[in-house]
Amino acid sequence: MTIGDPMVSEKLDQVPGILRELGIDLWLLFARESATLHDPSFDLVVGSNVTWPSAFLLTSRGDRIAIVGSLDQANLRAHGHYAEIIGYVGGVSDDLRRTIQRLDPRRIAVNYSLDDTMADGLTHGMFLLLARALEGTPYAARLEPAQAILTALRGRKSPGERARIAEACRITCDIYDAITPRLRPGLTEKQVAAMILEEMRRYPGLEPAWEPEHCPAAFTGPESAGAHTGPTDRPIEPGHILNTDFGVRKDGYVSDLQRTWYFLRPGERKAPEAVERGFRTIVEAVHKAAAALRPGVKGVEIDAIARGHIVAQGYPEYPHALGHQVGRSAHDGAGLLCPRWERYGTLPDLPVEAGQVYTIEPRLPVEGHGIATVEEIVAVDPDGAQWLSRPQTELYLVP
Amino acid sequence: MTIGDPMVSEKLDQVPGILRELGIDLWLLFARESATLHDPSFDLVVGSNVTWPSAFLLTSRGDRIAIVGSLDQANLRAHGHYAEIIGYVGGVSDDLRRTIQRLDPRRIAVNYSLDDTMADGLTHGMFLLLARALEGTPYAARLEPAQAILTALRGRKSPGERARIAEACRITCDIYDAITPRLRPGLTEKQVAAMILEEMRRYPGLEPAWEPEHCPAAFTGPESAGAHTGPTDRPIEPGHILNTDFGVRKDGYVSDLQRTWYFLRPGERKAPEAVERGFRTIVEAVHKAAAALRPGVKGVEIDAIARGHIVAQGYPEYPHALGHQVGRSAHDGAGLLCPRWERYGTLPDLPVEAGQVYTIEPRLPVEGHGIATVEEIVAVDPDGAQWLSRPQTELYLVP
Repeated sequence: MTIGDPMVSEKLDQVPGILRELGIDLWLLFARESATLHDPSFDLVVGSNVTWPSAFLLTSRGDRIAIVGSLDQANLRAHGHYAEIIGYVGGVSDDLRRTIQRLDPRRIAVNYSLDDTMADGLTHGMFLLLARALEGTPYAARLEPAQAILTALRGRKSPGERARIAEACRITCDIYDAITPRLRPGLTEKQVAAMILEEMRRYPGLEPAWEPEHCPAAFTGPESAGAHTGPTDRPIEPGHILNTDFGVRKDGYVSDLQRTWYFLRPGERKAPEAVERGFRTIVEAVHKAAAALRPGVKGVEIDAIARGHIVAQGYPEYPHALGHQVGRSAHDGAGLLCPRWERYGTLPDLPVEAGQVYTIEPRLPVEGHGIATVEEIVAVDPDGAQWLSRPQTELYLVP
Repeated sequence: MTIGDPMVSEKLDQVPGILRELGIDLWLLFARESATLHDPSFDLVVGSNVTWPSAFLLTSRGDRIAIVGSLDQANLRAHGHYAEIIGYVGGVSDDLRRTIQRLDPRRIAVNYSLDDTMADGLTHGMFLLLARALEGTPYAARLEPAQAILTALRGRKSPGERARIAEACRITCDIYDAITPRLRPGLTEKQVAAMILEEMRRYPGLEPAWEPEHCPAAFTGPESAGAHTGPTDRPIEPGHILNTDFGVRKDGYVSDLQRTWYFLRPGERKAPEAVERGFRTIVEAVHKAAAALRPGVKGVEIDAIARGHIVAQGYPEYPHALGHQVGRSAHDGAGLLCPRWERYGTLPDLPVEAGQVYTIEPRLPVEGHGIATVEEIVAVDPDGAQWLSRPQTELYLVP
């Protein structure tokens, strides 16, 4: 009997195959006080935290070796994921050097990355400590970024992972359906956010998918802040576009979905043509992108389809990527549907893989009304994308 | 009106003085997706999170400059801590290089450290990105660890910070007092932990000070796991020593306190002499260490007083440090009361400073009964240590 999460076992089982595919002999995680400064890979292949400098060694042959401070041993053993656990009192270096010499790897991947935060869990101080521990051995010169391992491991969702994400999406769509009839002009952005959280709390064990400060986010009208800021006391007025950005975490996996409403002015039966056209352009961009999404295409190609459609209709480009992967968190790793901008590094050119799960979330401003946007979530199957969210295809009209 | 935490303003106000004291011109924080991979310094001097690669520049002259992705601007402005906020769309490098050229610092501190996790928030990938952004300028060669800044900044608690820690300690002692009359043999470690959490929930806004998996921790009897593992189904038996390790977070600041109970066997009116002697040795070690704690002594000297006393009484050394600083988290930064072991790097030789807050937590095994330990918290005043916890000086006896 162990207390380990079965999803960690599922991910650990994927590791040797991915290492062989990439020709990497050893994947080395190296961290300390991991509850405080948390290498995101720990959630995938360690499943608990450590206090003292600790090494986790995963090989292409299937070895699972942990070297940890002696007081962390019992906790790690209770989780049951590592067959060999070496405990130390003085320092980690000797056992680490000895273990690497025994494994004698030609290629050693460690968690740093210029482009991908989720693959960049090794701190610079720990990198220097590792370099010092391996000084004078041939292994110091064999360190390379583990980004490709994590791209594959995070992206290729196991059936259990995909089911958890789909469930988070289903619940989020249900929450949006539940609040729609309750919306009315005069409510503030904060009140809309509170209403969403109130619905969320009807479900046991849910929490917001990202920082509660802006999950949910709500933006109403032409002067709203746009994105990545919390809801304000700004009230919804007739003629406003309202949009929200919200997701839930359930059983360790998240959703991340945006929806758009229009608030009718006195005498209006439908939204003004400018609003309709903006919203339609967004939905078309989402569906064109989804239709083209399949294994082997590059992220930049999918982004260009949505971006191109929006620009061709006379709107400005959205100042961000079209979509990111979701999984254990709302921004979950490499494989991004994005343009070739400096801040995205090499990500635009990564090929899409089967098993990945992406958001699609273009936006555009409708002058005098607000921002039109939807955000959907799709899974990539061998023959194309499958919706995990129920796509919004009609603007929600609020009288 | 801003939504920023006044404690962040208090800490930002301390920065220029500390930089001048150390002769450092610029302290540069560099991070991305900081909610996911969180540089702990952000809680002190940023007070919110960023999505895209972002630089925060604090100078000895008092400049506070932020360079962030355009969609993060509004949120950062709402917090009100940074006077100058530069937003970018393409990439951070050009604005960062230009701003550093304008400031023209001779010494630039960045967040990496071989010894101190709380000062090691810069990832290796971000370090490489920074080096690339500064390539070809004289500034690339001027980067140095910011550890000394953080040691000073975290250690020197403002009056507001100290009051919050004292309050967390007071509540934790009250919780221990409340459960003591409810303890009895037959309860399992898990039931003791649940009882502590039940008491905690009577207070609004409290949460466990560290991972709920082992906060509270509870260990009963001679075969208990020892430390850093969660409570088990092991029942308390007469003749057992029970100890717990628990703290609360209140208003962003934590406590971390251990207590020890003895469960009388039929016919016993007091604990066996071996248990009494073990507990007394621990209390003596704690009070000797506290009496010697004052500004200017080294951590290793204080550890040696407690360690030496315990060894002189014929017990084995505890396999960890005597005490660590607490503040925003239970292991809060440099300045450690510890021996000169490899895993502690240069920490044992750091001088204690006025304003710091330390735990004191030796332990020893009492054969056949369990582990005797208490953990207290003291603040360092110019003339010596002040208790923030109410020290346990008598073994709690449970009939």
